[in-house]
Amino acid sequence: MDRIPILKMSEFLIVTIQVDMHDRLAMILQEDLTSQIAATKARGVLIDISVLEMVDSFIGRIIGNIAAMSRILDAETVLVGMQPSVAITLVELGMSLPGVRTALNVDKGMALLRRSLGRDRGEDIHASPET
Amino acid sequence: MDRIPILKMSEFLIVTIQVDMHDRLAMILQEDLTSQIAATKARGVLIDISVLEMVDSFIGRIIGNIAAMSRILDAETVLVGMQPSVAITLVELGMSLPGVRTALNVDKGMALLRRSLGRDRGEDIHASPET
Repeated sequence: MDRIPILKMSEFLIVTIQVDMHDRLAMILQEDLTSQIAATKARGVLIDISVLEMVDSFIGRIIGNIAAMSRILDAETVLVGMQPSVAITLVELGMSLPGVRTALNVDKGMALLRRSLGRDRGEDIHASPET
Repeated sequence: MDRIPILKMSEFLIVTIQVDMHDRLAMILQEDLTSQIAATKARGVLIDISVLEMVDSFIGRIIGNIAAMSRILDAETVLVGMQPSVAITLVELGMSLPGVRTALNVDKGMALLRRSLGRDRGEDIHASPET
């Protein structure tokens, strides 16, 4: 088990980070995620870090990179579930994650992605497929 | 990091298993999941095991237990992303997971949960909140 699973949910990809990300795992995640965005034509990436109790500058940089790569591939990244201590550490490290949008939890993160997609397209994507 | 995160997405809970579940972690997951079902009034639980490359009878039993507990708490459990080798092992171990519904991937699993919920209620839950 040497990779972080990426769940595809309609047009979004969901990643739950739950192990300590050593360097190689983080690089694999970057590669997997970018190829998955291309393969599935995903429009948004939601990364849950609710169990992450500490971060270092490496993880902070990886998250920033993932967001930047996703954006180039035309997918929004939202980071959800950040613990207060993680936010404190990131800012103290001088990494305020520019360009990464955050939300309190998965529900709010999905809502954020849906809203920003709907605005991009100039349509309401909340409409059910049946209508 | 000694627990598996449980993501709440509208009325469903999503769990991605991505570490080798030792006994204690599996017990914690059982407890967390049942208390989360009660706390969030979730109607469905989706467990992704796509990165799980092997299972033993202990994990098989835990999954069966979680499904049984969820059902008592009025939530459906769907297992998604099972690798063929895992299916082979489970059947060879004599564990065909009675009462656990499975789906090929997260999208199909969510569709299954939505359908079964819609049927329970006698209404179409696909309808968007706006309508």
